Amino acid sequence: MRVDHGAARTDQDLVAIEAPLSVEVRSAGGGPVCRLGVLMRTPGDDADLIRGWLYTERVVQDVAAIVSMDFPEPDASVPAEARVTVMLADSVAIDEVVQHRVLTPTSACGLCGRLSVDRLHARRAHINAAAPCWPSTLIASLPARLLSAQAVFAETGGLHAAGLFDAQGQLRVVREDIGRHNAVDKVIGAAFSGEGVINHTPLLVVSGRVAFEIVQKAAVGGLDAVIAVGAPSDMAIEAARVTGLTLVGFVRDGRFNVYTGAERIADG
Amino acid sequence: MRVDHGAARTDQDLVAIEAPLSVEVRSAGGGPVCRLGVLMRTPGDDADLIRGWLYTERVVQDVAAIVSMDFPEPDASVPAEARVTVMLADSVAIDEVVQHRVLTPTSACGLCGRLSVDRLHARRAHINAAAPCWPSTLIASLPARLLSAQAVFAETGGLHAAGLFDAQGQLRVVREDIGRHNAVDKVIGAAFSGEGVINHTPLLVVSGRVAFEIVQKAAVGGLDAVIAVGAPSDMAIEAARVTGLTLVGFVRDGRFNVYTGAERIADG
Repeated sequence: MRVDHGAARTDQDLVAIEAPLSVEVRSAGGGPVCRLGVLMRTPGDDADLIRGWLYTERVVQDVAAIVSMDFPEPDASVPAEARVTVMLADSVAIDEVVQHRVLTPTSACGLCGRLSVDRLHARRAHINAAAPCWPSTLIASLPARLLSAQAVFAETGGLHAAGLFDAQGQLRVVREDIGRHNAVDKVIGAAFSGEGVINHTPLLVVSGRVAFEIVQKAAVGGLDAVIAVGAPSDMAIEAARVTGLTLVGFVRDGRFNVYTGAERIADG
Repeated sequence: MRVDHGAARTDQDLVAIEAPLSVEVRSAGGGPVCRLGVLMRTPGDDADLIRGWLYTERVVQDVAAIVSMDFPEPDASVPAEARVTVMLADSVAIDEVVQHRVLTPTSACGLCGRLSVDRLHARRAHINAAAPCWPSTLIASLPARLLSAQAVFAETGGLHAAGLFDAQGQLRVVREDIGRHNAVDKVIGAAFSGEGVINHTPLLVVSGRVAFEIVQKAAVGGLDAVIAVGAPSDMAIEAARVTGLTLVGFVRDGRFNVYTGAERIADG
């Protein structure tokens, strides 16, 4: 029912989809299938999501350790829950992965801050000390470029977007999801699936706010900057500082705020 | 650094705080202290948050089972992590709680959709069949009333708000948090701490979008309506339908959409 200043009428509306995806892992070297958890996500680009999630959550240290992903047809007994079974290289200690993620209370949830900023520091995949300078006009233009590439948001108003841009400001990958962390996992997973894409897309642009977890994922993914339409949290700023990321927020109407790594942003 | 059309200057900014709170439980009847998990939250109203979280996540079936909450001074060895130890009535089977939340992969995270919509249906605390009708002008006015009560958002742009309103549209409780689910837990926890407040605040208003988890918490809290400035997900709509909640989205400029329970909204 749409209500407009008291006048009501029945209408159709499009809404964003949110659905669970159960993640299981098994070793190429044999052994049991282990359940890692359930992601609430917007269906679509599920392989990108899982690849990015396994990498940014450090279940794997290298995406090459993901041997295969099998998305079986939903079981009739649990029709609502989609499932993926990931075969990992036998170099991955699945016992440890499951132990770490499932049995440690603080490790089961990506939102639970299980990694302190200090530990993240030690884990940073790389710091690109020779990162080029990006002109401020380029930075200011990125959110509009991301928005114009968002397919579903315009229809539902319900999705977050994440985009990876190269140093010239060209959008290389864009993904949407109801969860902002999922959108980031999807773009990083997609970038890893294209030859060398991740090495040429230093700029992550997100449609919303930036909490710690987004910076954590960007740092693990080896990106150089996180650029957001919304506000950062203090912990996001601190994580960006110790991992050498440039963090930009409130990009609107030609203006933005730089919280860390301002030396990489050039006049003009 | 603030950049405005290429012109940069260094400035101070206020940002929202995000910090971990480790939750431990122990039984009033004795036994060990068990760790339930870590919440990433904005500090402040932590007792409300924990009370609401334990209730809406169904760790306790009744807030009276929360005997006491102890917030010790941070340990010098882990200065960054705050901690709360909750003493629960000995009627609460702590072993089962910990087993359920920690050892079951799908149960450790509020975002993981561990409860199917069907199970939620069976768990609905109550359905208020005799809910009064709310005039559409009242519904349309609520987000502005919530926004005017938000203290921190105006300064940081980084916080979600949740408010509980009575059937006459009076705001009774408002709380903010960097996590939208935390803001909801905080208002519900606060309402339970005030005598009878929860019984007279049927309307939950949230500043952002509505995913499944928000509806789940509202249903468990016994509320009658969720009213959001942003978009709902399909799963949020389905959860509202089966639990008998009225779900309203996109409340802006005198207009809004009603996704479920439209019969409770009256003309005028």
